[in-house]
Amino acid sequence: MKLWQKDYEIQKLVEEFTIGKDPQLDLELARFDILGSLAHTQMLTQVGLISHKNGNKLKEELKKIYREIQSGVYQIDPGVEDIHSQVELTLTDRLGEVGKMIHTARSRNDQVLLDIRLFLRHEIQQIVVLVEDLFDQLLSLSQQHQEVPLPGYTHLQVAMPSSFGLWFAAYAESLVDDLQLLQATYKVINKNPLGSAAGYGSSLPINRQLTTDLLGFESLNYNVVYAQFGRGKSEWMVSSALSSIAGTLNKLASDICLFMSQNFNFVSFPDDLTTGSSIMPHKKNPDIFELIRGKSNKIKALPNEISLVTSNLSSGYFRDLQILKENFLPSIQTLKECLRIASYALKQISVNQNILDNPIYQHLYSVEVVNQEVIKGVPFREAYQKVAKLIEEGKLPQKPKVSYTHEGSLGNLCNDQIGNAMVVVIKGFDFEKPGKALAQLLK
Amino acid sequence: MKLWQKDYEIQKLVEEFTIGKDPQLDLELARFDILGSLAHTQMLTQVGLISHKNGNKLKEELKKIYREIQSGVYQIDPGVEDIHSQVELTLTDRLGEVGKMIHTARSRNDQVLLDIRLFLRHEIQQIVVLVEDLFDQLLSLSQQHQEVPLPGYTHLQVAMPSSFGLWFAAYAESLVDDLQLLQATYKVINKNPLGSAAGYGSSLPINRQLTTDLLGFESLNYNVVYAQFGRGKSEWMVSSALSSIAGTLNKLASDICLFMSQNFNFVSFPDDLTTGSSIMPHKKNPDIFELIRGKSNKIKALPNEISLVTSNLSSGYFRDLQILKENFLPSIQTLKECLRIASYALKQISVNQNILDNPIYQHLYSVEVVNQEVIKGVPFREAYQKVAKLIEEGKLPQKPKVSYTHEGSLGNLCNDQIGNAMVVVIKGFDFEKPGKALAQLLK
Amino acid sequence: MKLWQKDYEIQKLVEEFTIGKDPQLDLELARFDILGSLAHTQMLTQVGLISHKNGNKLKEELKKIYREIQSGVYQIDPGVEDIHSQVELTLTDRLGEVGKMIHTARSRNDQVLLDIRLFLRHEIQQIVVLVEDLFDQLLSLSQQHQEVPLPGYTHLQVAMPSSFGLWFAAYAESLVDDLQLLQATYKVINKNPLGSAAGYGSSLPINRQLTTDLLGFESLNYNVVYAQFGRGKSEWMVSSALSSIAGTLNKLASDICLFMSQNFNFVSFPDDLTTGSSIMPHKKNPDIFELIRGKSNKIKALPNEISLVTSNLSSGYFRDLQILKENFLPSIQTLKECLRIASYALKQISVNQNILDNPIYQHLYSVEVVNQEVIKGVPFREAYQKVAKLIEEGKLPQKPKVSYTHEGSLGNLCNDQIGNAMVVVIKGFDFEKPGKALAQLLK
Amino acid sequence: MKLWQKDYEIQKLVEEFTIGKDPQLDLELARFDILGSLAHTQMLTQVGLISHKNGNKLKEELKKIYREIQSGVYQIDPGVEDIHSQVELTLTDRLGEVGKMIHTARSRNDQVLLDIRLFLRHEIQQIVVLVEDLFDQLLSLSQQHQEVPLPGYTHLQVAMPSSFGLWFAAYAESLVDDLQLLQATYKVINKNPLGSAAGYGSSLPINRQLTTDLLGFESLNYNVVYAQFGRGKSEWMVSSALSSIAGTLNKLASDICLFMSQNFNFVSFPDDLTTGSSIMPHKKNPDIFELIRGKSNKIKALPNEISLVTSNLSSGYFRDLQILKENFLPSIQTLKECLRIASYALKQISVNQNILDNPIYQHLYSVEVVNQEVIKGVPFREAYQKVAKLIEEGKLPQKPKVSYTHEGSLGNLCNDQIGNAMVVVIKGFDFEKPGKALAQLLK
Repeated sequence: MKLWQKDYEIQKLVEEFTIGKDPQLDLELARFDILGSLAHTQMLTQVGLISHKNGNKLKEELKKIYREIQSGVYQIDPGVEDIHSQVELTLTDRLGEVGKMIHTARSRNDQVLLDIRLFLRHEIQQIVVLVEDLFDQLLSLSQQHQEVPLPGYTHLQVAMPSSFGLWFAAYAESLVDDLQLLQATYKVINKNPLGSAAGYGSSLPINRQLTTDLLGFESLNYNVVYAQFGRGKSEWMVSSALSSIAGTLNKLASDICLFMSQNFNFVSFPDDLTTGSSIMPHKKNPDIFELIRGKSNKIKALPNEISLVTSNLSSGYFRDLQILKENFLPSIQTLKECLRIASYALKQISVNQNILDNPIYQHLYSVEVVNQEVIKGVPFREAYQKVAKLIEEGKLPQKPKVSYTHEGSLGNLCNDQIGNAMVVVIKGFDFEKPGKALAQLLK
Repeated sequence: MKLWQKDYEIQKLVEEFTIGKDPQLDLELARFDILGSLAHTQMLTQVGLISHKNGNKLKEELKKIYREIQSGVYQIDPGVEDIHSQVELTLTDRLGEVGKMIHTARSRNDQVLLDIRLFLRHEIQQIVVLVEDLFDQLLSLSQQHQEVPLPGYTHLQVAMPSSFGLWFAAYAESLVDDLQLLQATYKVINKNPLGSAAGYGSSLPINRQLTTDLLGFESLNYNVVYAQFGRGKSEWMVSSALSSIAGTLNKLASDICLFMSQNFNFVSFPDDLTTGSSIMPHKKNPDIFELIRGKSNKIKALPNEISLVTSNLSSGYFRDLQILKENFLPSIQTLKECLRIASYALKQISVNQNILDNPIYQHLYSVEVVNQEVIKGVPFREAYQKVAKLIEEGKLPQKPKVSYTHEGSLGNLCNDQIGNAMVVVIKGFDFEKPGKALAQLLK
Repeated sequence: MKLWQKDYEIQKLVEEFTIGKDPQLDLELARFDILGSLAHTQMLTQVGLISHKNGNKLKEELKKIYREIQSGVYQIDPGVEDIHSQVELTLTDRLGEVGKMIHTARSRNDQVLLDIRLFLRHEIQQIVVLVEDLFDQLLSLSQQHQEVPLPGYTHLQVAMPSSFGLWFAAYAESLVDDLQLLQATYKVINKNPLGSAAGYGSSLPINRQLTTDLLGFESLNYNVVYAQFGRGKSEWMVSSALSSIAGTLNKLASDICLFMSQNFNFVSFPDDLTTGSSIMPHKKNPDIFELIRGKSNKIKALPNEISLVTSNLSSGYFRDLQILKENFLPSIQTLKECLRIASYALKQISVNQNILDNPIYQHLYSVEVVNQEVIKGVPFREAYQKVAKLIEEGKLPQKPKVSYTHEGSLGNLCNDQIGNAMVVVIKGFDFEKPGKALAQLLK
Repeated sequence: MKLWQKDYEIQKLVEEFTIGKDPQLDLELARFDILGSLAHTQMLTQVGLISHKNGNKLKEELKKIYREIQSGVYQIDPGVEDIHSQVELTLTDRLGEVGKMIHTARSRNDQVLLDIRLFLRHEIQQIVVLVEDLFDQLLSLSQQHQEVPLPGYTHLQVAMPSSFGLWFAAYAESLVDDLQLLQATYKVINKNPLGSAAGYGSSLPINRQLTTDLLGFESLNYNVVYAQFGRGKSEWMVSSALSSIAGTLNKLASDICLFMSQNFNFVSFPDDLTTGSSIMPHKKNPDIFELIRGKSNKIKALPNEISLVTSNLSSGYFRDLQILKENFLPSIQTLKECLRIASYALKQISVNQNILDNPIYQHLYSVEVVNQEVIKGVPFREAYQKVAKLIEEGKLPQKPKVSYTHEGSLGNLCNDQIGNAMVVVIKGFDFEKPGKALAQLLK
């Protein structure tokens, strides 16, 4: 078998193989590449490596390209490898030789490091908004349905009384902890790698604190060798934090898919949120939540993929790192979609008010009876055996008056405290500073 | 083939299968189980579910068991399933019926949740100390060797000048970010799950804020259904944070294994830290760093194992969660050993002062020459092509005077700033509060 | 904080760190190490590197050690690193200098490669027997319950008629394909790596075909550099094949855990195979199947752990490979336990004969009605819409006479064909040859 | 923040979320969907569910669509969910109501199962050809360079003599074992799932053996419930087999990236296969092999992703399974590209003939000297100590005459045997049968 016909075919293959999906993926990074170049140009001007005249020219043109990107008309030309090359090319086309100056004291290594940081900072902010939206939805559903009983299961066996109030709020509180992890990764990525060049810095007299301030970073990756570690480490950390949110979505979706089964019939959704079958006319399938479940698993698989690519590699840049973008960048969009869809769908959930009418829940309150004995002074183990005997003999008393009073229980959800915890976490992000800095850069 | 001889054999098989390694693993949790029981007993006494007399008896005996555990004489008896059962058994043996009272308003579900939290809080504190020790070692080596040149590589190709100062400090700064992630997980696990019972709380009038205070937790997992999510979620989060540290160790070890090869010969260690070969008399193998590299990968594989076990499971306890302990608990000890060994070994590292004598490094300063042109006003791209031509013609000038001035570069390591960053992160843990609370409980 | 008190403590730490769990784990390999040494000694004798007199002495003593291992009295002495060193030590203790000769033309690298191959060959044979046992159990249950209706679900929504006959046999057929994969890995590991020494062979005139024959291998790993790749590759391949079986067990266990829920109540088990709750007296928890589900996930996580440890490593032995044993060897025992317990438990399963009495299954036969229309000549899509309308109007006819005739359907299970497929696969293993060879070696 | 502006936006979001990338991905499956429909139509005709007249009409039109697909003009229309719907739509557009008949006794579940099987069968055949090509390349390079010495490393420490002959052939032999695994998965997927419909078969009198024969399958997935397990199981198995090949490529690429470093300088490639640096004019980076290394890791991450998505799911179809295609289908193309590029690049490799001139290799033959003593009758351990002493004293003799004679060693590569082993494995695939069957279907 002949694997290719002519030399140019294999050359094209090699080119495609090495460039990969960068041109498409880099479009997502384009506006952040411009922001980085704006800060870099301003710094080069201030330290005297570019004249003020040239610096101003470059900045004006960069802002123009930024607007073209925002309006969707800016493209990466065929044959151009990445966004960094494309921007330099555009500048040189439009401004002549001066366009090449923006590459002074930079490498594509620290450029892409920077672009990804700015991109992640922006995306994390969006994710926080979407998580907060879902959180609000969940807490509001918890309040609304706090009195609706839900059987609690362990081992998928009917166990003890619970409520929709408890169930919805559990996922809300879970998101608080997820954001704690996301915040740590935000702090890690909110540091400036620019100036690390190819991973060993530059002998030019650049000012890294200045670009740090111009771009609104909290601090910088001081050590330039460490800054280069960021490729791979940032992606792994952020994808781990996304996986935490994905884990909460996965469990929520798993519950809902189970609860929608006719054997549970705990919750339902309007027809436009379920799917019929091409062969079974009576089906109402929970495709949306199955897809949230599946897509969250895809996200959860990501940190491991990144570990596999990067593990056992020594320090210094390797081209392997390029391919991390391929699954990482889309996974952020996937998580955002899952969050959006989950919020939208939950807004329309109906909960079954009469679940406990089913006789399989007749022993649901057995532990209550045990506890009543305990309050009377019977040691727990004895009370337990007594109730077990009552059940065996079919003599368990009817549903006793329930009175859950402790923090986080049926009768005392503590949703206000959970709400406050979320407020505290979100405050910790401080998205204002970078927002202001970038606005200033673009002025 | 007969798979088992008699009924009791299969019954034993079933028992072993279900109990698993819990008796061994639970010994690690024993002292934390007692601490939890002490707080629980005190709370039960204060809310009136146990008399003060019985409460005092129980607390005295629990403290006695704690001392037995500390001195290594306390055991889990054969046939006893876990530490929770063992402690209750001991109490009942020694105090009679009153011993059973500690199980009031508790389930083994929230007991093990609590034990793991207290255990993790303790272990994280130890890990932070070990990370700090390695960090200090690395920064001190960076200071000590800051003038020793090291070639910087990209793509494993000789690239640009670097130094041992830069190289050691890179790993130090990496550890700062790793601890940031660990701190987020610390905050997540430093919340009290006790009182969630089997995952749905208790109808007894317990006071969860009181046990939260007694055990020195920052807050509580309010929602009891969410508290149960903690099984699996805590392990996943903490193992992710451990993986971040493991990732830094992996890269450090990868570098050292490479640098010890005769083809690099950058660093060496005394004989007692290397291993000979059973067949090749001239070998000095970097087994310690290969094992750090390998063991760090084992740790990095752990979050994924936990994801696999827990993913797609609906809410509520499942027995599957029991097996998470099997690889999770030992991995914490593995990480601690790796950190300890790495610190110990690095203390004895020798660095090669004359690496650059090798002619393969003759073009190491080519970018410097490019930069000199740039400072003179030549656009970067042009300067680059000029130097490329010089190299091609063998006319590249000798090593130019290097002057790296920017933050985090060869000439300006910023190790003080890196040191400060570590101080700030470590302060954020606040290990004092739990320490005091537990000391008070045991008084 | 002082991390260790005295030098000897750290030396002990280093020793423990490097030796790891090898002494315990290697006991599992002991008998196979002896078998390898027997073959190696015989070969050395035949090529003249050991005198016949010495060869006989060595072989007699090796057989004696083999019997000591079999009877459980042979131990790895404290301070001895691995089984290979221990055996050589014993021989030298008992026979003097001649004992050292068994290391001629060998390295511990090819010794452990060989031991693992012989061990895996033996374990795979045991696994095949256990899989066959479970397969027989499943097919027999399928036959026994072939008429008992079971609702078939898609999306966990009630979908179409199925039967316990179909359900049990599905898992049987799954095991056939799993064994196909196991057989491929068996073929890969049933090749002799002995003689590759440290990975580059030996300049001594050894005869590798002879040891291949003596040990009953199908062939040899010819290329000695490739033979060394086997470390890591064998473990990965075998653990992938085990994961396939684990995947079948995971799905079976997932079904059973679901089917045991009161909301399904499809199957049940006697009390000694379920577990009660420490707090809820009415529970019958499917712990055994939850543990099978969880443990199968642990096995499924293993190939990835091995990939992480080995990926991006260049060729040649690295000490990292040593730690693969730690999770790999126990996982084989875990799979065997899961298979054994699953067979034992299924033997005692009770199936609910009256599942369809529940009104949620009233539309289960809707597709049948569609099909009846189709047989009458109505295009499928039209028939489908017609039945959908009937359901909407509550006019769907009662359960129609079912007649499934095609291969693998309700009415035509094809269990004989599935049984035959298993027979064919198992024949392909050919365990006789190695069995005879090893018996001959030990004579 | 408003998350969406209008209702139709969210409806569009839901639609995109559920359809996902199916329309793009399904184009890869299009021709196989037609082949399946051709066989299905012929079977429906033969069993009398479709008249011969209609059957012929449908088959003619299906063949026409097949040609349109082959010529690249067939498209999935906007708003059409998948290829199955698109083909039915086209048929109905062109033939009227009769077009709908191809859906008789089928579900999209068994249709996509079948399409993926036919697709995988085709792709595996292509992969085998590409693996064979790389294998031939490697063996031929081994023959060509069999006398060129290469130092063998263990622990990345200079160890023993090896050769390019050994090194190239090691990877060739590795591919033989990889294909063994691929063949097992080929056997597993070369079974017909058609007729399983939604996972529970059909009450229509279809003939599954007939479609099995028409499509050239070796056998069928008998049990219809098991056939449905194939979704997920097929992808996992095949991706495991691809991972095995990827593992070989990963190690080969790791070696080459190391060997191209100036510190090794063992191999080199022409300029069009290496990449320069944007900042360092003297670099020749091995990007192609770094990308092979990285992309092979992405493939190796895939089985785990599939496990995560499918684990803990009970039997029966779930929509989660749809997303497996997203990373699985492209990964097959990625592997093919890696194989193609590796073959192409290796064809142009230059090997350094004078590696051993470097003084770091002076002790490379120390084990030879040990062995010379052994042949003289000195016990190995003693000879070893003697040579160690010679080295210490700098008295190790010059390079002794090497004579490696055993199978697979420097002097006896056994490349013929390795070549034969590959021939045997490839014969085992039997690609002819399906090829003929499909050709017949399209006639």
